[in-house]
Formats: sequence, C-alpha cells, structure tokens
Amino acid sequence: MDIQGTIEEIVAMVAPLTSYGEVASYIPSLGRVPPENFGMCVAMADGAVYGAGDWQKPFSIQSISKVFSLALVMSYDYDSIWVRVAREPSGNPFNSMVQLEADKGVPRNPFINAGALVVTDRLLSLTGDAAASVRGLLRKESGNPTVDIDPVAAASEAEHGHRNAAMAHFLASYGNLENPVGLVLENYFNQCALEMSCEDLARASRFLSRDGVSSGGTPFLMPDQSKRVNAVMLTCGTYDAAGEFAYRVGLPGKSGVGGGIVAIVPGRCSITVWGPSLDSNGNSLAGIAALSELTTRTGWSVF
Amino acid sequence: MDIQGTIEEIVAMVAPLTSYGEVASYIPSLGRVPPENFGMCVAMADGAVYGAGDWQKPFSIQSISKVFSLALVMSYDYDSIWVRVAREPSGNPFNSMVQLEADKGVPRNPFINAGALVVTDRLLSLTGDAAASVRGLLRKESGNPTVDIDPVAAASEAEHGHRNAAMAHFLASYGNLENPVGLVLENYFNQCALEMSCEDLARASRFLSRDGVSSGGTPFLMPDQSKRVNAVMLTCGTYDAAGEFAYRVGLPGKSGVGGGIVAIVPGRCSITVWGPSLDSNGNSLAGIAALSELTTRTGWSVF
Amino acid sequence: MDIQGTIEEIVAMVAPLTSYGEVASYIPSLGRVPPENFGMCVAMADGAVYGAGDWQKPFSIQSISKVFSLALVMSYDYDSIWVRVAREPSGNPFNSMVQLEADKGVPRNPFINAGALVVTDRLLSLTGDAAASVRGLLRKESGNPTVDIDPVAAASEAEHGHRNAAMAHFLASYGNLENPVGLVLENYFNQCALEMSCEDLARASRFLSRDGVSSGGTPFLMPDQSKRVNAVMLTCGTYDAAGEFAYRVGLPGKSGVGGGIVAIVPGRCSITVWGPSLDSNGNSLAGIAALSELTTRTGWSVF
Amino acid sequence: MDIQGTIEEIVAMVAPLTSYGEVASYIPSLGRVPPENFGMCVAMADGAVYGAGDWQKPFSIQSISKVFSLALVMSYDYDSIWVRVAREPSGNPFNSMVQLEADKGVPRNPFINAGALVVTDRLLSLTGDAAASVRGLLRKESGNPTVDIDPVAAASEAEHGHRNAAMAHFLASYGNLENPVGLVLENYFNQCALEMSCEDLARASRFLSRDGVSSGGTPFLMPDQSKRVNAVMLTCGTYDAAGEFAYRVGLPGKSGVGGGIVAIVPGRCSITVWGPSLDSNGNSLAGIAALSELTTRTGWSVF
Repeated sequence: MDIQGTIEEIVAMVAPLTSYGEVASYIPSLGRVPPENFGMCVAMADGAVYGAGDWQKPFSIQSISKVFSLALVMSYDYDSIWVRVAREPSGNPFNSMVQLEADKGVPRNPFINAGALVVTDRLLSLTGDAAASVRGLLRKESGNPTVDIDPVAAASEAEHGHRNAAMAHFLASYGNLENPVGLVLENYFNQCALEMSCEDLARASRFLSRDGVSSGGTPFLMPDQSKRVNAVMLTCGTYDAAGEFAYRVGLPGKSGVGGGIVAIVPGRCSITVWGPSLDSNGNSLAGIAALSELTTRTGWSVF
Repeated sequence: MDIQGTIEEIVAMVAPLTSYGEVASYIPSLGRVPPENFGMCVAMADGAVYGAGDWQKPFSIQSISKVFSLALVMSYDYDSIWVRVAREPSGNPFNSMVQLEADKGVPRNPFINAGALVVTDRLLSLTGDAAASVRGLLRKESGNPTVDIDPVAAASEAEHGHRNAAMAHFLASYGNLENPVGLVLENYFNQCALEMSCEDLARASRFLSRDGVSSGGTPFLMPDQSKRVNAVMLTCGTYDAAGEFAYRVGLPGKSGVGGGIVAIVPGRCSITVWGPSLDSNGNSLAGIAALSELTTRTGWSVF
Repeated sequence: MDIQGTIEEIVAMVAPLTSYGEVASYIPSLGRVPPENFGMCVAMADGAVYGAGDWQKPFSIQSISKVFSLALVMSYDYDSIWVRVAREPSGNPFNSMVQLEADKGVPRNPFINAGALVVTDRLLSLTGDAAASVRGLLRKESGNPTVDIDPVAAASEAEHGHRNAAMAHFLASYGNLENPVGLVLENYFNQCALEMSCEDLARASRFLSRDGVSSGGTPFLMPDQSKRVNAVMLTCGTYDAAGEFAYRVGLPGKSGVGGGIVAIVPGRCSITVWGPSLDSNGNSLAGIAALSELTTRTGWSVF
Repeated sequence: MDIQGTIEEIVAMVAPLTSYGEVASYIPSLGRVPPENFGMCVAMADGAVYGAGDWQKPFSIQSISKVFSLALVMSYDYDSIWVRVAREPSGNPFNSMVQLEADKGVPRNPFINAGALVVTDRLLSLTGDAAASVRGLLRKESGNPTVDIDPVAAASEAEHGHRNAAMAHFLASYGNLENPVGLVLENYFNQCALEMSCEDLARASRFLSRDGVSSGGTPFLMPDQSKRVNAVMLTCGTYDAAGEFAYRVGLPGKSGVGGGIVAIVPGRCSITVWGPSLDSNGNSLAGIAALSELTTRTGWSVF
C-alpha cells in the first residue's frame, strides 16, 4: 500500500473542510491558530513515518496529554489507579458533576477532566512533577528533545480554569486528591499546554501500537496494559462522540481541543491528524473526516 | 491452537464462579433457572464449531436479541435508523430517563431499552411482525428451525413490564414511535423471550465475524454495516460495564439478563457463553470470567 | 374596603396583558379558547361573593382539580397518603423523572403529575370513581349542580397523554399504584377536564379559607388538614414558579394550564382568576398580575 | 396568652428529643457542642422577649446568616440581586450542581450555598467587608455589641470547605462572581461562623415580623421587601425540608447546621430555637418539634 500517497490525497481532500466548524476560543492562545492548518502523520510500528500537510508544525496537544499521563501512572503503579477512577463512558457531558456526586467522587474515566485531574495528582505523588514527567516521556518517545510547555497557554488556561478548579475542589471534598488543589491544577494546565507536531505525537504514541514497547525497544507498558489504554481510548477518548468515533473510524483514539487526534491501529501503526477547527463535540472536524477516509481506504478498523 | 481443549479447560475453571452473583428474578421464568449451568461455544468464521459444558441447552436470550433486530433494520434501511436513535454510550443507568428528556426523545443507543424499542418499532413497520422476523433470522443463521419464543417468559415480561411501558409511552410522547405502544411492547417482549443455546447463538452471530456474510454465503449486511454493529456492541453492549468489558475482554460483546453473552472476534469467530448468575452490572459473572480468560490465552483482543 | 370596585379596576387594568403569553395548545380543546377572556372572583369566608369580567364563564380547571382530589383523600384517610407521596417542592421540571427514580417511586408532592396520579389512584380505591367524587365535591361546595366533565377535553387529553401514561407505568413499576394504569389515567384525565367558572371555583375553594369548614357549615377537613393543604399549595402549587408566586403574590395558590388560578387568604377569602394565556412557567400571565395587584392593594399576604 | 409558660413547657417537653439525631461534625468546632443543649426565645414585634432553656448561650448561626446578608443586600440594592440568583425551591440537594449548570450559573435561591455565595459576593462589593457588615447589623438589631465571629470555626470551615470552593469556582466560570473566589469564600466562612444566642437572634430577626422596621424604629427594609424575604424563607429556608416545615410549622423559617432555627410570625413575633442535634435533613430535630408544638398551641400559622 502506498501510505504516503494515500495520506497526501486525504489531506488534499479534507482541506475544504477546514473552513467548517470552529476553533476553540475559550483561551486566547488557542483562538489565534489559523483554521486552515491541517496535518496528518502515520508512524508504523516498525519505524517508518509518513506525513502530509502541516504535519511538522507544533500545536497545543491539550487533552491528548491525558493518554500519556495515564500510561505513565500505569507504568509505575500497574493498575492501582483504577481504585480512584473508573473506566466507563460518561454519557452526556451535562452529567459530569452529577455523576461525580452519584459516584462519590470517583470519576467515570481518566479522560474526562475530573479523571485526568486524579491521574495527574497521582503522577505528581509518584514523580514530584507530573507535567515534567509527561514532557520527559514525550521527548524520549518522539525523539524530539525540544518538545515543551507553552507558558502562555498554561497561564491562560489557569486564568480561565474556574471549571477545572471547581472540579478539583470537588474531588478534594471526597478525599480523592493526594496533593494540594493548586499544585494539581498547575501540573494539569502545564501538561495540557505541551506543544507537539503530528510527527512528534505519532512517534510518541507508537508504543500503543506495539503492545507497550517503547521507541528504544524496551517495554514501557506490559502488553495487557497497552491494550487497556487502547480500550479506554476507544470507549472514552473523544468526549461525547466516542460511539460515533468507534462507528465512523473504528479505532481507539484521543482528541484534544487544540484540534489534534491520535488513533491507534494495534499491531500496525499510530496515526495523528491536526486541524484546529472543531465540530460540535469538540473534535477536529477535518481530522475525523481524514481518519474516517483513511480507515475506509485501508480497512484499518478493529471491527 | 487447540480451541476445543482450551474452552473445556476454561469451562472447568469458571465452574466454581457460578455460585457467586445472582440469577435475575424480576420475572419468574428467569428466576427458576439453576445457577450452576454453564456453557461456552466458539463458531469459527470458516465453519468449525467448538463447544463445552451446557453449550447445547437453550436459554432466554433477552437483550442479546437487540443485536439481531438492529442488524435486520440495517439490512432493510441501510442507516436511516440513526435519525431516531444515537450510538453513544449512556453512562450511569440512573440517567436513562433524564437523558431521553435532554435528548428530546432520541435514545442514546440501540441497546438501552429505549433505543431497542425504537428499533423494534421500525422493524415492525418494515416487516409487520418484528419478533417473527428476528426469529426467522435466528433460525436461518443458526440452522436450527426449532428456535422459538417462550410464551411463558413473554407473558411474564409483559406482566412485569411497567418500566418498558413507561419508556415506550415516553418515546411516543416525542413522536418517536410509528406503531401503537401496545404492539411495540408485545413485539419487544416476544423477541426478548426467544430461547437459544450457546451453539445456536454462536452460529447465528457468525455473520458479524465475517463482515456481514450470512451462513448461506450471501451478504446479509455490508462490510461497513457489520463493523458498525460491532462498534456499537463494543461501546454500548454490556449495560454500564462497557468500559470494563472492553478493558477486560477487549472484544465487541452483547449480554442479556438470561446470562448469555455474545462476543465477536472480527475476521475470526463468534463466541458465546452462558451462565445465569449475574454480577452487579447485570452481566453473567462466570461468563465474563470465561471470556476474559479466553482472550488472555488466545490474544483475541481488538486492541 | 370596596372589594367589588377593586377587582373591577384590576380586571380593567390587566386586560391589555391578555394579549401576551400563549394559550396552551397541546390539546385542541384548550387551544381554541380565546385569549382575551379574563375573569376574577373573590368569595369571602363569611359568604359574600364579588366578581368581575368573565367570572361566570366556565373553563377547564385542569391541575386545579388536584387540590380537591387531595382534600378528598385527606378527608377519608387523614394523612396516610403521605406515605405514598412527599410534600417537597420539586425544583426544575426537567428533573421530574429522575427525581422519581432517585426517590424510589415516591413523587415529590401531590401537585406534580406523578403525585396527582397517586392521589387519584387512592381516591379511586376509596370511592370507586375518583373523577365522579371530585365532581360531587365541586358541585356541592360551589352550589352549582351543573358542574361537569367536558368529555371532548377528557378524550383529547387521553389521546395526547403519553407522558402521563409513562409516569403512571413508572409509578406502577415501583408498586405505587393500587389500580390498573388505564383506569387511573381515565379518572385523572376526567378530573382534569372538569369545567367551572371563577365563581364556581371560588365558592368551592372557600373551605380552605375557613379552616376546612364546608359551605354547609360542617367540617370537611380538620383545621390542621386545611392548613396543610394551603402549605402544599404555597410551596408546590404553581409548577416551577412557586417561589416567584410566594414572592409576588404571597398566598397559597394552585394554577392550571386552562388559565385558572385559585389563591387562598386564610381566615378571609378565596380568590380565583382566569385568563387562558400563559407565561413561560405555565401560569396565567394576566392572572398572576391581577393577584399580585390585589394583594398589593389589600395587604392580603401571609407574609 | 402565657407565652413564657408555654415555651417553658415546650422546652421541657422536647428535652428528651435532644438525644435523637446527630450533631453536625464535618467541622470539629461544631462536633464538640453537647447535644443536650436546648433553648427557645420569642421576641414580640412590640418589644417583649420571652426565653427558656439555654436561650442565652451562644451558638454558631451558620446558614441563618444567609437571611441577614440577603436583607442587607436588598437594603442597598432594592431588588437587583434577583438578576443573579433566582428564588425557587431547589428540590433534592443531589441536583444542586446539575441545576446550576442547567440554569447557566444562576443559583436557584439565595439560601442554597451557591446562592448565598452570590449574595455574599454582592455584599462584599457594596460594603468592602461582607462578614463585618453582617456582624454590624446583628449587633445593632440584637442590641448585643459582643456578637462576633468565632475565628476557630471560620478557619475550620475554610479548611474543610472544598465543596464551597468548588461551587464558588463554578459560579466564577459563569461570570457570576464580582470578587476573587478566595475573598468571597473568606467572607462567607466568616459570616457563617458568627456566634449568637437564641435571644440575640430573636431580637435581631424582629424586623421581619415588623414589615422591615428595625429595632431603632426606622425602616431597614421596605414592607414589600420584608414580605419577600419571608416568602423566600418559607419556600427555601430549610434545605430539602421546606415543604415539610411549611406543613408542620406553617411559618417562614431558616435553619443552620449549628442547630439554630429562626421562624417569623408576620405582624406578631420572631421565634428562635436551638438544639444542636440534627434530623436527616440537617435541621434541629428538637427545634422543629418545639416550633411545631408552639404553632399548634398558639395557632400561629400563616395558613
């Protein structure tokens, strides 16, 4: 299969879609990104990397960072984090707070904000600096030592982060944070403000297509842990559109409001797309179209 | 691989678990089934069938019937049903009615009861007798012409079916039923009361492991439709334990309160287990253990 | 005080308001009532009756009937109904089903539909015909033997009553109905379809301003029961605007979607208004304005 | 009527009830108060004051302070606060966050915590020190210049105040706070930690039984404002037991988790009770019994 040709065609095909949807604007640094950007990258489990469009431009990875903080915590703790966070889809976002209340402070999964705060809190306890350890993993796995946090985005996030602060205090009221609320939030905002390109991100995610084996060839996660991260991505990775994503794309995936999406073809490759303009569920509109087209053409569906 | 030997070992291994959990008792005919029953069957995409334990005893398939009514509707209508029912996980069962209200009468997915009622309603419009058409499909695909509805279970279901009646009237209040409430309920109760063995069910589900190709070798669903049924099973097939099932078993699956579970290994086989005693989520306790053990031993995970 | 003069002035004053808001149209017979109708009546505890505008035209009392079915049940059962229905405000209507679920089938109060169905069910058990016994009470207390059920409205209600049917089945699923769902619904729709004028209704409600003493001078309710019906009216009588009604009018009151409102000045009088055009909370827009003006001018507030 | 004799009898009568229920213990300073304390005070609109039991022992007024901060804001702003907070009962406490979300950051009423935070925020803007201005009002109206904030209780509240912090950040995320979250919380915790006796509190509340006229004889609130505070107390003053309180006591009232309750008989008197042991709704168990007995004996019900 001519992967390079295929993704070049797809990037050309979805280009017109980048004018639909809306760029996230709740923090200024996101709102300033031009919507016409679009990049795509495929990193094969065996090492080859293909890219098209703006695949080497860095963008804010936002919620995609949650995959890596979860993987890091699992690499230290095996599976003890699952006492503090569940792994069920959360339904309508409207319900997030009420579900947290019904579930006595145990978030539904590690990819909703409440769950990600718990994971970051645990990583902070384990490493002393959660955001730095996520950055360290991403630098090592992407092979790009310049991957870094955008301080402007992080500060902007903190300034507009009353909802996350509300959630963190709510978790603390249930005793489900080990560290001070302010410190957990700071680490969380920093990890979300990491900047990477499609290439960086596809390379850094490759371990999830390789049963947990890191870029250096050593096990980062056990095979069953890698499968489980993929399972959580498939059921909970794309906000309130996980079913739709499973239906249209058919792969485990995780999106961020910066417009990036990572998808995993187990045993084969990791795929990243980036298009800042979002659909009504908060996922890259052109990005989902591109992934859907790619899996249709290649048959790369887990189903 | 010695599949026959493997499933015999697993059936022996999970036998002690059948004394845990509880047999569903909200209708008398379910409550009378002895909990020590346990069966398992694997039907390969290419035709071979392996079975162990009580794999040829019939049981009430209950919600597993929802997979077949959905597939039937899709076989007639391609994808127009998705205007009337979404395909997102529903979160906590507690929220079912409030979500239906928030979503203006469009159920979250076809496997929660509200969604299944909409599917049955559509099948009724398409065929004139939804339950009979599900039975027809199951007879044909299982190769067992004696598959039938248990009239006692159906009557019992109707008698204790106030919640389903409430849901059906609620859907009708939003204009999301095409047929009279009573007729939809009757068809729904009948389709749930179908009795089949693990063997029947594994054979009948095989088309989902064969990209939609029926037992007779002709396409029943298109490949993309078959993948999509699997996607909905993975994200929504096991009540409020879809994430847990994806995490532990790693396959698309659909359970019923009669204690049966169907799981699909795309491209390879369909698997059924049956153990009437249920865990707190309403899934067969020993059944999930058996599926988890099987996928661990065989590596049959989509992740 | 010149009550007659006051209410004539108020009726003239609010006349322009009858062109705002919207007449309920979910059943045809309500939708056909001309919005410019407006009537007001004050029935003093000691017998004098004052009226202005369309105070002698009959209209559909709808939910106002819930006050009388509740009073009737209390007259037979003292306070045992409170085991089956609570007396707390219900908050946002959005929550009605989820609250019923959280409260295990015990409705929040007797004036939301779920609670009124329970009351009607009990009255049916006590009398054999709930709607007829409400009609009997209203005829006797109003002194108008022609008060009757509008069969067209009742039939129309039944035809469009899927939500009430859903609620009734839901209650039945919790074992909180003593009679068959269909029979309870029929009685409920009939009692809501009673037609009365402002005069009839003010006379019939007078016992609530007289510590329970009926028009004939004999006790219908005990004084503490009468106070308690008033308490429930004040906290729960006007849908999701009970707080607003207490704030603006300052009296116990009960409204119906037919545009009628009954308010009680304990120890002094009962007041009725009727204007079919409703505000966004489902209460008569001009009616609330008239009551607010009347209590401002007269100082008749319980606060 | 012999009020002094009546309340002495009632205090004796409810004494055994002080051993039921539970003293609030979520902050240590509340948990240490001996449950056998019980006091009652009646302050007549015309000046006479009657007391029995521990009616001169100070206790933590907690949520009762919300009445006074609301009255203060209304005294400055007439009714503009109602743009930022509604006045409807809130239903089940379970729903508080979800309701706030559904209502786009406008709390249901000023007596749930979210609403009280908004009121405190406004008072802070108006006076520069919300807690001090509440204290000033209470000193002046009670005639007791030693009324003060318990710094230990305030600090303890702040330490365990993650839920209130969550709520404040949530309000801020909707733009419904004018001041920094930390400052609003500090003022809120301080105002809740005010210590007063039944006598102080009955004297200080007297203006609500006098159409807003202060102890000094000058108008503090307009008559319609005073009525409206009473209306909000009746519909929203006792957590999820407002209907029950209206039903059993029949007066506007406001309770606090310190075990105090203030009730108003419009035109006649203000009543306070204090018993630290709470019922399942968070209201003083013996206190409600005492108020219920008093209104039954005296006929002091607004209904």
